[in-house]
Amino acid sequence: MNYKSQLHHFALSAASRLIRLQLAEYQYDFTLINHFPWKRDENFLAINPSGSLPVFQFNNDIIISGSRAISEWIEETTATSRLLAGSSMHRAEIRRLLDWFEDKFYYEVGLPLLHERVIKRFESGADASSVIIRTALSNAQVHFEYLNWLADQNNWLVGTQLSLADFSAAAHISIMDYFGDIQWDKYPAAASWYMKIKSRPCFRALLSDQLMGVTPSSHYAELDF
Amino acid sequence: MNYKSQLHHFALSAASRLIRLQLAEYQYDFTLINHFPWKRDENFLAINPSGSLPVFQFNNDIIISGSRAISEWIEETTATSRLLAGSSMHRAEIRRLLDWFEDKFYYEVGLPLLHERVIKRFESGADASSVIIRTALSNAQVHFEYLNWLADQNNWLVGTQLSLADFSAAAHISIMDYFGDIQWDKYPAAASWYMKIKSRPCFRALLSDQLMGVTPSSHYAELDF
Repeated sequence: MNYKSQLHHFALSAASRLIRLQLAEYQYDFTLINHFPWKRDENFLAINPSGSLPVFQFNNDIIISGSRAISEWIEETTATSRLLAGSSMHRAEIRRLLDWFEDKFYYEVGLPLLHERVIKRFESGADASSVIIRTALSNAQVHFEYLNWLADQNNWLVGTQLSLADFSAAAHISIMDYFGDIQWDKYPAAASWYMKIKSRPCFRALLSDQLMGVTPSSHYAELDF
Repeated sequence: MNYKSQLHHFALSAASRLIRLQLAEYQYDFTLINHFPWKRDENFLAINPSGSLPVFQFNNDIIISGSRAISEWIEETTATSRLLAGSSMHRAEIRRLLDWFEDKFYYEVGLPLLHERVIKRFESGADASSVIIRTALSNAQVHFEYLNWLADQNNWLVGTQLSLADFSAAAHISIMDYFGDIQWDKYPAAASWYMKIKSRPCFRALLSDQLMGVTPSSHYAELDF
């Protein structure tokens, strides 16, 4: 494929990473445009008034905002789509887990960690609150126990086929892993699931991400961790 | 239709109201099961481990959790479905706005207001924080300006047909209106849009909702306000 497509993203935005994984899995050709949540950008607000990421510009004329709208659009319009397949009930289960990560995990774990460790620092130079970080890491345990249980049931999070649920979970978890926040030895089934998805070609670009001034954990890019 | 279906909901949960509107619009026969966000309910957690509302039990054997998964499932499986219709691009626009309300509006406006005014009181008896309420009401202005602009462009929020975007927006706004928080005279196009959707038969059940100890605003159930 050779479209002029662009994804407006932020390297440590999990919702952006979900779409990067999905686009790369289907071998879309696209350019990444960097945005930073702590910088107001009037040109970007003209494209997406909510100001949130990601935004996908396909072929210069189609503009889609938000990870759920983009991911559904890609599944609807890609001839080889297979990440939201199966019966309506199966699709409902994929969407339930996608929401679990995009919503519950993000607000209970991902956003507080990102805000304390990165956004606050760049926005105002303020120190991270250790109380907020401790609460988020404690919340994370429940999520990892559930993920570990899911990964132990099947090949993938929903049944035997890779789906958007795996990409959403992996996208969110990859940010925590960037910070070295995951006690992988406590969650062996989740660890093998993550190693499997991390080894896919579509994951490669994420593993070479580096945010200036924020160093990834030593094992972040290792496939055997 | 005569299925044994149940919707687990909370009267002032906007996500639950979105599904109540959609089910009523398609004339599904269903029973409401009340839950209260401040009460832990192990039986309910066995159905939906995330603990969030709504959850739809269809015909006693299908269980779907979360407003997005449920709303997509209803559209996929209802013969007369028409609330997520049109081209993929049009559907992406409906989903973008649905996300705007389910996510952005909810976390910036709806949840803080509900938490301060209702959840905190029932959970711990604590007083509402006037600072948090003021911030949420100030955030609401941006949302209402945008809604007013959208309502002024077309018959409905996305084009000329009623869609899930209208139901999601109306569900969230109906909670604010329950509390009498909306300065309708400042947003005339949004007000006529809301009056139009409020007059639909599917809206009726919402207008007779009463949460014990929390009285709705005087105009809440009026069709001409």
